Amino acid sequence: MNYDSNILKLKRLGIDTQREYFVYMRSDCHICISEGFEALTRVEVTVKGKTIIATLNVLHSELLQHGEASLSESAWRASGAKEGDTIAFAHLQPVHSMSYVRSKMYGNKLNDESCQSIISDIAEGKYSNIELAAFVTACAGKNLDAIEIAGLTKAMVAVGKKMDWGKDIVVDKHCVGGLPGNRTTPIVVSIIAAAGLTIPKTSSRAITSPAGTADTMETMTPVNLSLAEIKKVVKQEGGCIVWGGAVELSPADDVLIKIEKALNIDSEGQMIASVLSKKVAAGSSHVIIDIPVGKTAKVRSESDAKHLEFYFHRVAQEIGLNIKVLITDGSQPVGRGIGPSLEALDVLAVFRQINNRPLDLEERAILIAGELLEMADEVTSGNGHAMAKRLLQSGIAWKKFQAICEAQGGFREPVLGNLQHEVLARNSGQVFEIDNRRLAKVAKLSGAPSRPGAGVLMHCKIGQRMIAGEPMFTLYAETSGELNYAKDYLEKEFNEIIKLS
Amino acid sequence: MNYDSNILKLKRLGIDTQREYFVYMRSDCHICISEGFEALTRVEVTVKGKTIIATLNVLHSELLQHGEASLSESAWRASGAKEGDTIAFAHLQPVHSMSYVRSKMYGNKLNDESCQSIISDIAEGKYSNIELAAFVTACAGKNLDAIEIAGLTKAMVAVGKKMDWGKDIVVDKHCVGGLPGNRTTPIVVSIIAAAGLTIPKTSSRAITSPAGTADTMETMTPVNLSLAEIKKVVKQEGGCIVWGGAVELSPADDVLIKIEKALNIDSEGQMIASVLSKKVAAGSSHVIIDIPVGKTAKVRSESDAKHLEFYFHRVAQEIGLNIKVLITDGSQPVGRGIGPSLEALDVLAVFRQINNRPLDLEERAILIAGELLEMADEVTSGNGHAMAKRLLQSGIAWKKFQAICEAQGGFREPVLGNLQHEVLARNSGQVFEIDNRRLAKVAKLSGAPSRPGAGVLMHCKIGQRMIAGEPMFTLYAETSGELNYAKDYLEKEFNEIIKLS
Repeated sequence: MNYDSNILKLKRLGIDTQREYFVYMRSDCHICISEGFEALTRVEVTVKGKTIIATLNVLHSELLQHGEASLSESAWRASGAKEGDTIAFAHLQPVHSMSYVRSKMYGNKLNDESCQSIISDIAEGKYSNIELAAFVTACAGKNLDAIEIAGLTKAMVAVGKKMDWGKDIVVDKHCVGGLPGNRTTPIVVSIIAAAGLTIPKTSSRAITSPAGTADTMETMTPVNLSLAEIKKVVKQEGGCIVWGGAVELSPADDVLIKIEKALNIDSEGQMIASVLSKKVAAGSSHVIIDIPVGKTAKVRSESDAKHLEFYFHRVAQEIGLNIKVLITDGSQPVGRGIGPSLEALDVLAVFRQINNRPLDLEERAILIAGELLEMADEVTSGNGHAMAKRLLQSGIAWKKFQAICEAQGGFREPVLGNLQHEVLARNSGQVFEIDNRRLAKVAKLSGAPSRPGAGVLMHCKIGQRMIAGEPMFTLYAETSGELNYAKDYLEKEFNEIIKLS
Repeated sequence: MNYDSNILKLKRLGIDTQREYFVYMRSDCHICISEGFEALTRVEVTVKGKTIIATLNVLHSELLQHGEASLSESAWRASGAKEGDTIAFAHLQPVHSMSYVRSKMYGNKLNDESCQSIISDIAEGKYSNIELAAFVTACAGKNLDAIEIAGLTKAMVAVGKKMDWGKDIVVDKHCVGGLPGNRTTPIVVSIIAAAGLTIPKTSSRAITSPAGTADTMETMTPVNLSLAEIKKVVKQEGGCIVWGGAVELSPADDVLIKIEKALNIDSEGQMIASVLSKKVAAGSSHVIIDIPVGKTAKVRSESDAKHLEFYFHRVAQEIGLNIKVLITDGSQPVGRGIGPSLEALDVLAVFRQINNRPLDLEERAILIAGELLEMADEVTSGNGHAMAKRLLQSGIAWKKFQAICEAQGGFREPVLGNLQHEVLARNSGQVFEIDNRRLAKVAKLSGAPSRPGAGVLMHCKIGQRMIAGEPMFTLYAETSGELNYAKDYLEKEFNEIIKLS
């Protein structure tokens, strides 16, 4: 193909389209006409020798002069473009791996080769949002078997960066989520690192929840660390608690999670592949998987949890990872806070061992840390729990946490939203059911996780007696629009959120 | 919610994003900040009392002044906006019907209520492209049963317009496609209308093929008719051949087809719902469904065809439509042309009964027309074929076709692309296999269907003896970029396209 006639000059328009790259051309541009490009055509564009794939939006106005083109902000950055650079255009070769996605839609299985091909094309940005949504959907629900999930896991590891700690035992933990406030990670990591083990913990931001561990940690310390910075922190302190997305341990997974978030789904196979690929990439050998079970948790029944446990074990076996699954109680939120800063305050109360600290959160963290100590042969079987408890209650873990935060860039106290609204019991009675999903929704409508100070502070637990007029929980928000939105929802769903007998 | 503080002034930027509506705001806009809007947030925007849902792109530049916002061209038109109009913003209430789509992803069934809810939200433009892709994928392959397809069909009819001819018998035909050049519709409609029956044929444009009937007809006469115009044509001539998408008989289906096109899939359930909903909406009572079967047709085996036939019958029964399914030979292209104008020339050769007209196309059209005449009780069983043949070969059908074109806005001769490239046999031998899919791809790379004069003109059929150096087919194109792209593909796949023994 002759590129000479396919060259325009770049002008920056500053349009932010997030991840998907867009290119802007005049509708009467000679390249559009001669190449047959129309709006939404996917085209290959080359700037200074670097080629990316972008979706075309055409302009019926004078934002661009003849001979000019523009790129969306993400594409501008990805291509390293500068104002006035030349940009060349070519037809997009059909993305071959989409034929595997179509085949999967039609009920055929993915194999290692098709997984590698799809995941590497996704990591290279070759898929449009429409194509990503099709792949995510084709893999949703129980559509993937263990071999397919293992294939995806290996493919995700292959396209990402990998850490090596030069040690036989590197431990880690992961919670499948769905339980508001279950923020054990900062405590577990600090106990484990205090015990002298290596635990390079990379956490995610919220997908569909009001807070991920990375969102919570960010209210106390920087979490967007580079690979080199993570290595330095872990070598110095034995552990870290950082955002995994910043280091591209599994770049394809990060792209897929954004699409899952837009669809408000959390697919089982993709979740297992996402979790285990990041553990392998982080160089872990021994991993605890926490699966909370409850009517309104992500995993709703013991049998679903057993099903998930089976798949985690099968895939871990395929990829050579040592795991232990803990099935835990998921009937109500853990601790008191729901939302980044509120959850961080719970974590700090446990570290500081203050009197009214959330003991359910403390006990869960000790349980997981104890199991990890035993898996790593740090203590003999049955003695992990006591050791973890000692490290926490003595303040050693708290010192370690502060040291980790210092190493990550400095510790700071979390800040709460300055708008508050107390929600009172309308009747008296005993709390017999709490809806995790609706509470999470209230916290999200209040602004969490993008507003770190927003969320819900619980004042009751299952079994507690409430008197009419007593506060059941408090809403925190940073903007009045969001606070009102949460209040509107609350008005409609009031009786479903916390049920009194 | 208080809208007063949520108002900006509209400035037209002229950005064409096709169907999905986009709204452009400054990243430092007070509404973005106070409402928590980020790039890709879906928001409700109201212009002069009319509310639409749009996806946000934020601007990091001075394209917009403080207090200004813009809409993409499709949203600008849909909202009836004018330069300087005020635009109000609100949070999008979650699209409730997406919960049914998620449930379907997780293996649950759709029912009539969920189908109505999904299809009406899609018709109202509430789904983003990502959400549409998820719905299309969740319904792809064999994921829908007959009850679900009937539910979708009824829902598609319910949201669209419906025609009523005041007659007991209104006939129609449909080919499931996948066979290049199978352009029987103009001939069948003309025969049937010439016989005095009513046949209000709405056709589609190409989804994944090089030409749909609407694309082909458009090279000879206008096809974008309004409902009122269609009624006038059919009342006057007994039949029409128009584009169905222009009249919104099934607006949701038109949206879904664009996503299927972007994914290059053609899903069975959606296809049945799409076809039958348009027949019901067009007021038809008796319909022939043509299913060509061949190794490289859309339907690849007799058993797949029987499966599809069963589903068509089950769904037709559910919605009270009288249908007959014809399973036909799909081993090679029909006629000589592949591409809008080239296929139109085949149709005209049959109408004009010129000596070297494509007899396979003629015979297929007579077969279908004959069956329709019998279904409509126009002739006794066994005599339809002879009557159809007589109407065609006497020139009566050709007169009727010209009259229909006149009524639709005037007849014109199709125009071929002025770039041509002959593809010669490299060896001598007998043609024993022709790959429909690869040929269709060559025609598409040449520019069909968006370039009506582009495509492939065949010079051989299965069983024909070729001598090395003889032309096997000719490429037609309107732009050199496209011609080169087709030639590049041809070079790679030459031996797979037409196989000689």
